[in-house]
Amino acid sequence: MPPRTPIPVVKMDPKKAPWEQEKKPHNRWHPDIPPVAEVKTGDLFRVETIDWTGGQIKDDDSAEDIKHVDLSRCHYLSGPIRITDEKGEPARPGDLLAVELCNLGPLPGDEWGYTGTFDRDNGGGFLTDHFPEATKAIWYFDGIYAASRHIPGVRFAGLIHPGLIGTAPSHELLKIWNDREGALVEAGENSTTLGGVLHTRPLALLPEPKGALLGDIPADSAAWAKVAGEAARTIPGRENGGNCDIKNLSRGCKVYFPVFVEGANLSMGDMHFSQGDGEVSFCGAIEMSGFLEIKCEILRGGMEQYLTPMGPTKLHVHPIFEIGPLEPRYSEWLVFEGISVDESGKQHYLDATVAYKRAVLNCIDYLSKFGYTKQQVYLLLSCCPCEGRISGIVDVPNAVATLAIPIAIFDQDIRPKAGGPPVGPRLISRGDVAKSKYDGSKPLTMNPCMCGGH
Amino acid sequence: MPPRTPIPVVKMDPKKAPWEQEKKPHNRWHPDIPPVAEVKTGDLFRVETIDWTGGQIKDDDSAEDIKHVDLSRCHYLSGPIRITDEKGEPARPGDLLAVELCNLGPLPGDEWGYTGTFDRDNGGGFLTDHFPEATKAIWYFDGIYAASRHIPGVRFAGLIHPGLIGTAPSHELLKIWNDREGALVEAGENSTTLGGVLHTRPLALLPEPKGALLGDIPADSAAWAKVAGEAARTIPGRENGGNCDIKNLSRGCKVYFPVFVEGANLSMGDMHFSQGDGEVSFCGAIEMSGFLEIKCEILRGGMEQYLTPMGPTKLHVHPIFEIGPLEPRYSEWLVFEGISVDESGKQHYLDATVAYKRAVLNCIDYLSKFGYTKQQVYLLLSCCPCEGRISGIVDVPNAVATLAIPIAIFDQDIRPKAGGPPVGPRLISRGDVAKSKYDGSKPLTMNPCMCGGH
Amino acid sequence: MPPRTPIPVVKMDPKKAPWEQEKKPHNRWHPDIPPVAEVKTGDLFRVETIDWTGGQIKDDDSAEDIKHVDLSRCHYLSGPIRITDEKGEPARPGDLLAVELCNLGPLPGDEWGYTGTFDRDNGGGFLTDHFPEATKAIWYFDGIYAASRHIPGVRFAGLIHPGLIGTAPSHELLKIWNDREGALVEAGENSTTLGGVLHTRPLALLPEPKGALLGDIPADSAAWAKVAGEAARTIPGRENGGNCDIKNLSRGCKVYFPVFVEGANLSMGDMHFSQGDGEVSFCGAIEMSGFLEIKCEILRGGMEQYLTPMGPTKLHVHPIFEIGPLEPRYSEWLVFEGISVDESGKQHYLDATVAYKRAVLNCIDYLSKFGYTKQQVYLLLSCCPCEGRISGIVDVPNAVATLAIPIAIFDQDIRPKAGGPPVGPRLISRGDVAKSKYDGSKPLTMNPCMCGGH
Amino acid sequence: MPPRTPIPVVKMDPKKAPWEQEKKPHNRWHPDIPPVAEVKTGDLFRVETIDWTGGQIKDDDSAEDIKHVDLSRCHYLSGPIRITDEKGEPARPGDLLAVELCNLGPLPGDEWGYTGTFDRDNGGGFLTDHFPEATKAIWYFDGIYAASRHIPGVRFAGLIHPGLIGTAPSHELLKIWNDREGALVEAGENSTTLGGVLHTRPLALLPEPKGALLGDIPADSAAWAKVAGEAARTIPGRENGGNCDIKNLSRGCKVYFPVFVEGANLSMGDMHFSQGDGEVSFCGAIEMSGFLEIKCEILRGGMEQYLTPMGPTKLHVHPIFEIGPLEPRYSEWLVFEGISVDESGKQHYLDATVAYKRAVLNCIDYLSKFGYTKQQVYLLLSCCPCEGRISGIVDVPNAVATLAIPIAIFDQDIRPKAGGPPVGPRLISRGDVAKSKYDGSKPLTMNPCMCGGH
Repeated sequence: MPPRTPIPVVKMDPKKAPWEQEKKPHNRWHPDIPPVAEVKTGDLFRVETIDWTGGQIKDDDSAEDIKHVDLSRCHYLSGPIRITDEKGEPARPGDLLAVELCNLGPLPGDEWGYTGTFDRDNGGGFLTDHFPEATKAIWYFDGIYAASRHIPGVRFAGLIHPGLIGTAPSHELLKIWNDREGALVEAGENSTTLGGVLHTRPLALLPEPKGALLGDIPADSAAWAKVAGEAARTIPGRENGGNCDIKNLSRGCKVYFPVFVEGANLSMGDMHFSQGDGEVSFCGAIEMSGFLEIKCEILRGGMEQYLTPMGPTKLHVHPIFEIGPLEPRYSEWLVFEGISVDESGKQHYLDATVAYKRAVLNCIDYLSKFGYTKQQVYLLLSCCPCEGRISGIVDVPNAVATLAIPIAIFDQDIRPKAGGPPVGPRLISRGDVAKSKYDGSKPLTMNPCMCGGH
Repeated sequence: MPPRTPIPVVKMDPKKAPWEQEKKPHNRWHPDIPPVAEVKTGDLFRVETIDWTGGQIKDDDSAEDIKHVDLSRCHYLSGPIRITDEKGEPARPGDLLAVELCNLGPLPGDEWGYTGTFDRDNGGGFLTDHFPEATKAIWYFDGIYAASRHIPGVRFAGLIHPGLIGTAPSHELLKIWNDREGALVEAGENSTTLGGVLHTRPLALLPEPKGALLGDIPADSAAWAKVAGEAARTIPGRENGGNCDIKNLSRGCKVYFPVFVEGANLSMGDMHFSQGDGEVSFCGAIEMSGFLEIKCEILRGGMEQYLTPMGPTKLHVHPIFEIGPLEPRYSEWLVFEGISVDESGKQHYLDATVAYKRAVLNCIDYLSKFGYTKQQVYLLLSCCPCEGRISGIVDVPNAVATLAIPIAIFDQDIRPKAGGPPVGPRLISRGDVAKSKYDGSKPLTMNPCMCGGH
Repeated sequence: MPPRTPIPVVKMDPKKAPWEQEKKPHNRWHPDIPPVAEVKTGDLFRVETIDWTGGQIKDDDSAEDIKHVDLSRCHYLSGPIRITDEKGEPARPGDLLAVELCNLGPLPGDEWGYTGTFDRDNGGGFLTDHFPEATKAIWYFDGIYAASRHIPGVRFAGLIHPGLIGTAPSHELLKIWNDREGALVEAGENSTTLGGVLHTRPLALLPEPKGALLGDIPADSAAWAKVAGEAARTIPGRENGGNCDIKNLSRGCKVYFPVFVEGANLSMGDMHFSQGDGEVSFCGAIEMSGFLEIKCEILRGGMEQYLTPMGPTKLHVHPIFEIGPLEPRYSEWLVFEGISVDESGKQHYLDATVAYKRAVLNCIDYLSKFGYTKQQVYLLLSCCPCEGRISGIVDVPNAVATLAIPIAIFDQDIRPKAGGPPVGPRLISRGDVAKSKYDGSKPLTMNPCMCGGH
Repeated sequence: MPPRTPIPVVKMDPKKAPWEQEKKPHNRWHPDIPPVAEVKTGDLFRVETIDWTGGQIKDDDSAEDIKHVDLSRCHYLSGPIRITDEKGEPARPGDLLAVELCNLGPLPGDEWGYTGTFDRDNGGGFLTDHFPEATKAIWYFDGIYAASRHIPGVRFAGLIHPGLIGTAPSHELLKIWNDREGALVEAGENSTTLGGVLHTRPLALLPEPKGALLGDIPADSAAWAKVAGEAARTIPGRENGGNCDIKNLSRGCKVYFPVFVEGANLSMGDMHFSQGDGEVSFCGAIEMSGFLEIKCEILRGGMEQYLTPMGPTKLHVHPIFEIGPLEPRYSEWLVFEGISVDESGKQHYLDATVAYKRAVLNCIDYLSKFGYTKQQVYLLLSCCPCEGRISGIVDVPNAVATLAIPIAIFDQDIRPKAGGPPVGPRLISRGDVAKSKYDGSKPLTMNPCMCGGH
């Protein structure tokens, strides 16, 4: 192993538009998007990424940019990168690609991030029925810590990670995705997988040529039209990894990705300075541009050796993550519980989504007694190092979910105490998030308590 | 503060039946179950508990006892204990009761535990459609560690906690519980909160006089009949705490419970030597008898000060948990991901329950490549210190759940490696769990992939 | 492995004198002290111990008992316990005895402890030239935490451990001890190993029949006279373990002791609820009575396999300690540095003892600005979970030692801040330790800055 | 606070000699070395440093460069940097300068390091009487981990820190240093602070014009001659911080330095990728070039508020360190003990240096049974994240020091086991360090067991 100066493989300039970059990113998953680079196993290489919206969000005090964000353009991924072994033989379908995250950080010169909630009519968030308006908080990075003028009084160590990283799907896997997500949308609001209730957020985002950027495939070509018409959107996590949003996936971690196409075609983006489990506000981590320094290993035949695919296609697989020893240590936590009874008092059956929604709402209500607005806490819980746990999933009819928040990130003691929380002159106002009014173009559905989960 | 020898408040003899104990336990929630003791705030007191089944499960190598367990008799709780302040004024509705867990352990002379999965026709577990038969593993305690002859090759530090602890509900709150859970059962398999699919586990367990033990209320009295007819079952966690199954609720932690009746009437039981997040096999922690040494504080008016009840009754509240600095430290974790696409390939909408089921199944499949049977891993994941996380809950249509398991609890390296897992002579067989055949009295429903969650 | 109820091997009644106990303890090291019990490898057994002074110290607010403590009677050890393998073959010289600490705690009914500094004329402490008077703080145990009326405003989780545990020396090893310590005393103040300076504490404590308790050897027998005349004092740690005072040696840890006599003859005592690295005040941990639940394993021939004895006798060996995962986690520390320049400004050569003394004094000075007296801090640093490190030992002429104290144990923020520490009305007085006046019978030596180390 | 791109204040090119750098470093402490830059409190600024020897050591497999290293040229420090408040008022004597370490790393393009032991005749190390020859191990950085071809089979997460950082001394403080260290050298081998024994390493390094680099002071000027003649060497840590070698001083930590001259004149260098407590091999951390991104705060009058200077000059002060939450978490440790009895069997009096030497030697002997040479372990203990503790410092006559090493850094299980360590074919040879023969020009002193501490 020679001294390890990372090989610069993809550079990005956050001041330029995505389509102006030297190595154009892509914002869809498709096997035909051509690699922008090739690396060998063992190489330490550096990939830069722009923020997931491609620069649509600004460092200011208005949430108008969040309100009008064009989600058809997200997420901008750097890559694909073709991976070969030391002899030049590419990774092949059936292998596992081990990706070690050696270093991560913000892009020099662009050290800031944002957390937002989308307008209910433009994607919303986990609690969009409670908080339908677009909001935003700007975060500055202070060494290992993040702080925000929009949520004063909190400061926490970041766990920088890629929100989105994965290998390219094969044509066969892509078809499976489009089929199953299409079926959900087609079944629509009567789908049996929705709990039979009205929903307040999109069911799924199907292939959409509008806004598609496909690397070097010329935008007016036939190839572009074909690929854009069938490429999968990047929003959900799937068999290839993708938008897995695992908040601890930081320095020293390793991911084992299934390989579906020759060369693996690894892509990544959507860098986060920090995220809470669940990323509840949707635009929810501290979103930023950034860089990754990584290296790869190929485990030949690893898919068969280590994974147990479901179904006849053997493609329902999953990545495996290995977490290292460098997480911040927090000693003390305050933990909020939710059970699967919704805000209207209705009982749901072992529904962890409802339970987690209740845990988040309970925490928001609680922390709002300490000088924060509920919108501030909603954004905070989306991006601070809080842990969302499925504590009980078997005790009919209630799922129990918990949300644990480290006490040390606040500049006040947020524990319950005899005498109650600060009131009157003791209560320090903590300002508010940047906002944008909700216009309410769609009527709220008849079941206002429904969480994003349904 | 005088030297702190715990005041023995409730003693239990694990060799006796529940109804033979000096201070009879209770296995239902009801405000009219009379307190068995009174303590003052600041007192350090000791409460002993029998195991949740009241001694139905034996230390042997057959799962017949698990198969035929009588769930109408569970869980046996010690208490209620009436709490007053130092002047003798009782805790009152609207207060918060802070309960600090000072010490916990197995009952001397009874240092063992069990983990089981119920037969699908008798309660089942989270994966009952995959593993319908009753199984059992016996655990012995070796200082801070647990080890099992039924799952050799793993050993982990316990985090002893009460599976079940809570305050008594008021009559009004009890009625809310019965109404909402009754509505779910009544709506049955067409309930909109079930995802419109068939289920393979009971929807909810409604009040059931059979098997009810109500402390000192004579079993043949009119009072007994009234209380037993309306008392809530102990299975689910609810507004009063109850079966919250928070695995980290161990030495040095504190819980803030809402108080609904005069004196708070605190009860506890279902001691666990260790549990994994989710307690997936249902009888799923390392179940044992045990003791708690605790002390209480009353936060007068704390419910209004710190909680934000939903609805007109102001009773939809929740406890808050404070976690201390004594958790075992694990450095390295292997993390399994699940998305809300079920085993048949069907897409569900942001369903964290389906996603968590997939994460658990993915982990079971993986670990079964290291010499374990799937049943062993299922039980192991239910009781070892694994973490179940809601990693992404907003990226339509996929919820992403993760299951993280500490690498250090195994006596072999379970990480993926080039060359694959041990095979042939390198593979050490790890035996198997105690089993009982599944008779399959009910036909499996038409949707075999449905998890317990729906 | 059967269910693990600990076998009660040695019981102690803290209300009785040492010589009134059923199985009399011993307070000297000698191979001829007969075992009080025999256990097999694999047995889980329980040993109770009285406090190290045998009940000389009281829970009151005077330090007169500390001042007049009779150190010839310390430390009272429970045992020796003879260890055999499962076939009844005893541990033999040359084996290693692995001792796992499964559970530890205070003796029921005696849940309190004390920390003290001895009078300079009766043993003193690390800083006896600065603090010559006897002082005392009483600690009560509150679950996992300790708190003291003599040092209000701090509270920390205990790490209960035996201050003293070890195997019996052989006759040959005992002679080595007596010879080398005798040589030090004989050389006295001119010893080349003293830095040629005057000292203010005893150089070593040689065999002393006065106060000796030797288990069941009758006090007026010839055997007693012989053994008491040559038995080693228990004060220092030596090749057999003994007074190693390793503060992290708590639940889940394992010690590998060299075996010098048939049966190993394991003894233990001097239980601590918590200790800081260095145990600087000498009577310095939170001293208490207590119990240990332990089990043993014999590693046949392990001394030769794992150790590398010095010298011709092959007896200069050492125990090895294995620390488990259950230490309290603290996130943030304040660290004080000391270099090997003493209080008079004199330069010492790479002397870690002087450097550590300076680190301790620097910390005492610092914390005394927050409402504590220096005596309070001195006692606190002796018993709270602070870490004493040798940070640099090679950079001539200065050794660098550091003392790290967890910030979370204080009820105020002790970090430096613009504006300085609290003064005037903002400064909360924290009371003081129990004291006893120093009579100053001996003149202070001419070099008042000398630490205990030289 | 604007977005935080670090201001590049000092750049270094590791391919150039120290005196060819744009902003020349300095390798002596003196108040008259002029600042190379000025920054304001709150600025985030970046300082690059060359390695401590200024490029004398190469990435090869010979230790000849270590053997012949010119120590008169060390350590090369970047700076001084003058610090002012936001109004431009400089830090003043009596203030505290809080320095937060926001980010640290190797210099891009120079990602490697070395650990060595000097030849006994050229500085030696802590164990130079045992290991007199020069040795070297080269380390490559693999993300957060370090690995060496010279010590295969170990890998550990780095805790990057500056070995050397501090403020400039005043003239008065400089004179105190020179006086006290001069007195030690003058007293020489009869010094009372040496234990009266012969020593095998230099006592102290006094001002030495040869090799001095003083920033921009022209090398042939009168100013140079004056400053070089009285400037203090950088080897030891002193009142201004300097070579404190605190291994945990990494990202997220803060140091509070005393200010002795106007502007504070902060300098830093000697970057370490990782270090063990004590840095026993002297050239002992993983030495590298690197960068620091830091920011400063001035605590006006903080010296008087927080420190308690000794002596009439009020200059015997010390920095304070605040450790953050980002240390690697290790679960399990093997701990080696040493007592203050030296290799010859001689008893020393509470000598922590002798005790720590014994702990280190005991650990070296132990680990050499697992396929490593003793020289490999010596270097390993100098640079891996091991902890050196002063466990007992009061139990006459023995100080007890311990060395704790994380078990997880090895690729084999190093715990003692029945059957002993691997032998024969089971024993994997781990190669060896790079070496250079010891010529033994000086006769070994008559007391071969003496540690560096005396």
